[in-house]
Amino acid sequence: MDRNDFRRELAQQLRVDSIRSSDAGGSGHPTSSMSAADLMAVLLDGHLKLDFDDPSNPAGDHLVFSKGHASPLLYACFKAAGAISDDELLSFRKLGSRFEGHPTPVIPWVDVATGSLGQGLPVAAGLALAAKRFDRSPSRVWCLCGDSEMAEGSIWEAFDHASHWELDNLVAIVDVNRLGQTGETMHGWNLDVYAERARAFGWEAIEVDGHDVEAIEDAYAQAEGTSGRPTAIIARTKKGAGVKAVEDQPGRHGKPIEDAEAAIAELGGERDLTVELAKPERRTSRRSDGGGFEPPRYDLGDEVATRKAYGEALKALGDARGDVVALDGEVSNSTYSEIFRDAHPDRFVELYIAEQQLVATAVAFQRRGWKPFGSTFAAFLTRAYDFVRMAAVSRADIKLCGSHAGVSIGEDGPSQMGLEDLAAFRAVHSSTVLYPSDANQTAQLVGLMADLDGIAYMRTHRGALPVIYEAGDRFEIGGSRVVREGDDITLVGAGVTLHEALRAAEELAGDGVDARVIDLYSVKPVDAQTLARAAAETGAIVTAEDHWPEGGLGEAVLSALAEAGKSCPVRKLGVEIMPGSGTPEELLREAGIDAIAIATAARKLVGARATA
Amino acid sequence: MDRNDFRRELAQQLRVDSIRSSDAGGSGHPTSSMSAADLMAVLLDGHLKLDFDDPSNPAGDHLVFSKGHASPLLYACFKAAGAISDDELLSFRKLGSRFEGHPTPVIPWVDVATGSLGQGLPVAAGLALAAKRFDRSPSRVWCLCGDSEMAEGSIWEAFDHASHWELDNLVAIVDVNRLGQTGETMHGWNLDVYAERARAFGWEAIEVDGHDVEAIEDAYAQAEGTSGRPTAIIARTKKGAGVKAVEDQPGRHGKPIEDAEAAIAELGGERDLTVELAKPERRTSRRSDGGGFEPPRYDLGDEVATRKAYGEALKALGDARGDVVALDGEVSNSTYSEIFRDAHPDRFVELYIAEQQLVATAVAFQRRGWKPFGSTFAAFLTRAYDFVRMAAVSRADIKLCGSHAGVSIGEDGPSQMGLEDLAAFRAVHSSTVLYPSDANQTAQLVGLMADLDGIAYMRTHRGALPVIYEAGDRFEIGGSRVVREGDDITLVGAGVTLHEALRAAEELAGDGVDARVIDLYSVKPVDAQTLARAAAETGAIVTAEDHWPEGGLGEAVLSALAEAGKSCPVRKLGVEIMPGSGTPEELLREAGIDAIAIATAARKLVGARATA
Repeated sequence: MDRNDFRRELAQQLRVDSIRSSDAGGSGHPTSSMSAADLMAVLLDGHLKLDFDDPSNPAGDHLVFSKGHASPLLYACFKAAGAISDDELLSFRKLGSRFEGHPTPVIPWVDVATGSLGQGLPVAAGLALAAKRFDRSPSRVWCLCGDSEMAEGSIWEAFDHASHWELDNLVAIVDVNRLGQTGETMHGWNLDVYAERARAFGWEAIEVDGHDVEAIEDAYAQAEGTSGRPTAIIARTKKGAGVKAVEDQPGRHGKPIEDAEAAIAELGGERDLTVELAKPERRTSRRSDGGGFEPPRYDLGDEVATRKAYGEALKALGDARGDVVALDGEVSNSTYSEIFRDAHPDRFVELYIAEQQLVATAVAFQRRGWKPFGSTFAAFLTRAYDFVRMAAVSRADIKLCGSHAGVSIGEDGPSQMGLEDLAAFRAVHSSTVLYPSDANQTAQLVGLMADLDGIAYMRTHRGALPVIYEAGDRFEIGGSRVVREGDDITLVGAGVTLHEALRAAEELAGDGVDARVIDLYSVKPVDAQTLARAAAETGAIVTAEDHWPEGGLGEAVLSALAEAGKSCPVRKLGVEIMPGSGTPEELLREAGIDAIAIATAARKLVGARATA
Repeated sequence: MDRNDFRRELAQQLRVDSIRSSDAGGSGHPTSSMSAADLMAVLLDGHLKLDFDDPSNPAGDHLVFSKGHASPLLYACFKAAGAISDDELLSFRKLGSRFEGHPTPVIPWVDVATGSLGQGLPVAAGLALAAKRFDRSPSRVWCLCGDSEMAEGSIWEAFDHASHWELDNLVAIVDVNRLGQTGETMHGWNLDVYAERARAFGWEAIEVDGHDVEAIEDAYAQAEGTSGRPTAIIARTKKGAGVKAVEDQPGRHGKPIEDAEAAIAELGGERDLTVELAKPERRTSRRSDGGGFEPPRYDLGDEVATRKAYGEALKALGDARGDVVALDGEVSNSTYSEIFRDAHPDRFVELYIAEQQLVATAVAFQRRGWKPFGSTFAAFLTRAYDFVRMAAVSRADIKLCGSHAGVSIGEDGPSQMGLEDLAAFRAVHSSTVLYPSDANQTAQLVGLMADLDGIAYMRTHRGALPVIYEAGDRFEIGGSRVVREGDDITLVGAGVTLHEALRAAEELAGDGVDARVIDLYSVKPVDAQTLARAAAETGAIVTAEDHWPEGGLGEAVLSALAEAGKSCPVRKLGVEIMPGSGTPEELLREAGIDAIAIATAARKLVGARATA
């Protein structure tokens, strides 16, 4: 068969298989798959270099479906390439099948979970950057985008960074089928709009008929030959192409084809073509993971901000391990990741003020075996919350640090105060949430983060806090520390509120109340045992956190006690008012989370018990 | 004085006052203010139409500082316009002053809180849309942007929508001072990059020397004369302009000028110029708020999805009230806001797949007196979490609905499942979180949302649920409903898990266990009284939620009990595994939140009490 004919036949097979799997699954997006079938057929036949038996070969290409709802097409490609059986294809969307409604890395050839539009291209840019800069590998990253998702701002963060990084190993294939879920997109088939924007963002742009295999071949060849910048192929396609009943029809999004049998017949019936993918050369990784992390040491009583300790520990971690990379959102002199940057400039990536691209890049880096630590203000990680959520679906192992947490930042005001980060990160599957109270502890925990699975989050403070632990002290994920013994009541804090709790305990001691003070530096997982013992032995608990009252440290304590089957009166202190500007001390006072507030709450609980 | 000389003098005054306030406050961003002083001086003198005594005049212009850290400049403008005294200016960043580190609507002439970069322009676009389309007012919206924030994807969502909406009443002034917080921006003084991107996004773009008052005048006049599209003025400026010690110097971001006195002298000393702003014509609002909301009625036992009831109730609310507007992120046939759209197309805004612009537009609409209801999948509101956070700082009254919550959506898989929305929205100051369990209840609550202050969030489900309440039943914010009486144990759920709890209660009744079932449809504020009574009377509680275990309904219950000083054994059920695809029933089962799981947990608690 002539190569062009083969490709056309292969495309028809991809369409038929997309219809078949959606039909078997009873739901899915066959029409969004059919528009891109020719684009994928040409890609599989001679362009995509992938060894399905060795997906972690650092020289292999990546195929990212940013339009994750076209999963039937992706899975049909896997079948056509001989990687999965027809039975597996037909398990689509059934319980226990790895072929879910939207692709996830449960499938070894899927790099990132997609289905929240606008995320695949940012991750693809990160993969291309890691391949080019860190792995110095010939990998090319092919990313299939929908036209609807071009409305997501995150897409333009990727466009901006990819050209800045000169990623000539990145190709975005934009499937302009004109139809979104509810109707026509903003720009319909105006391909020029997309091409002009891509060019203005520093990309090569090629407009093409997405159903013409010869034109597609030329476009891919041109992309492969372009150097110094990424390429966007803007392809005019028809949704549901090949089946009259649905082709270019609105109202057909996300539904199996009504008469699948007739549609398959119209497409020429089932086929059983196999396409042999080009194989990448075999490479091994350039990474060295090393070891022997020596955390920086701080002297008892010194005043050190936890953010500073984060930066110094990260630098030390980078000294010890060649696989640690750092990313920051243009605030590295605030988060102190600049200490790492200055020591290891080749392993630091500046994301400018683009937090979504920051998290996407971290997800990409871990996929290629690196250990990414990303930092910005805790408040600004909310900008990337959907990316964090999806990173968990991607089973990604990333490390994030949010600095400038809480009202204790002072004068900058509420826009800069991370006050919801504990709640947001606790409510992420696979997450670890750390909130250190001292510099030596911070440094130790940074070391432990490197090898944690899942989404590891550390919260740091702007202001200096006294060092209360010896440099050699050991801390573990899921642990806590009783920093003061006492049997009358327990005060639980972390970060700045631990220090307020310690001051409150001093004050209470003057009243003859012996307060136990617990440093709950590991907010998730949480040390239920120590909390349950405190409930039993002291009979009352006050929690204090520089965070909104919901979803943070206080509720972590309540959940741990409930889980352990222990209960006692608990008074939960958090920020109950919208803060303004002021000094840290004034704002802690006004928010009701300083030593005075903690002592007052404790006296009330102890008093209630006495009169009971 | 010649007008250009006056403007130059006025600009120097704005610089001097920016230095003075930052000096008095001990922190702030004077250098980021000084770069834009000439741009603001020309704007104040003859372009900006604003009556400081009547900021809600719908014909007035808006001045949005998207680069909110340039607050010293904004406040200096207020002083120059005679709106505030010098004493007030010098209260900058002090506790209790409304002149916070970053502007908020605590100041009556500030439309939106900024300081999280990339948010002002999206809100400015929404203000311009409301003025043009809803209020048919001659208001112009002037938005000062930083060059650093052009890296935020949300900026490009605004560019995309503003040209689509043909907002010739919107002017973005981009202060290209080249220097970010840590160093040079990605594009430095390459003004062409910004201008080309703006043009590719359908804007008029003008490059200008941002320190040349005559050139600035020409640019503003051209913007005012442009029709059919918005204008971006790309201004080349120097950070810290006018003071040699800091002008165009890196490392000067976010710091008062070291030698303020010398700097003021270099700028020609203090001045006391007043500029009279152009006054807008006096207009009254075109809005009618109406009344007489008649919620749709559903028959007991019918199967209706809460998302459907949301759409039908919203349409009915739109029938009754002329001030209700709806927004959706290209999924209106899923959220059912399409029912409103079809009935009131003139009050529906399609945001395509741009959730950040969706929330920003809602914030803008409420600022101009409208009642915005925005909807998309609950999962995709995470994309706009920073905008929701900042909406709270803006004291905005917006209503959001997240559909397709939880694993009960079924086959689409985890990327589409909102499983963190309750945690995220509870941890927002001023928020209300509603999670209705039945169609009549949903409809009632939609009506109540219209007049709620703050961030009102409603979670809806994809699947149909039986109607369990009469159409006339009344529900209130902060309420709950005991849907089944019983004294042996309490089961608490909402939405799909309420129905699972009801089934569990049936099953338990077979074992002779009388379970009380509480519908906790108001997750915040929460009905602590009913929960405390249940704890006291039944002695044990099982909570179940189609949500991660953290920060949601279960922890709301634990917090309410702690607050009320009541305790009992509580077993909290939530989604503990990463779900895949499957039927709703299979996934509820696998997640451990179906009737069987609830009954099992209840039996265990009752059994433990029996053996205790």
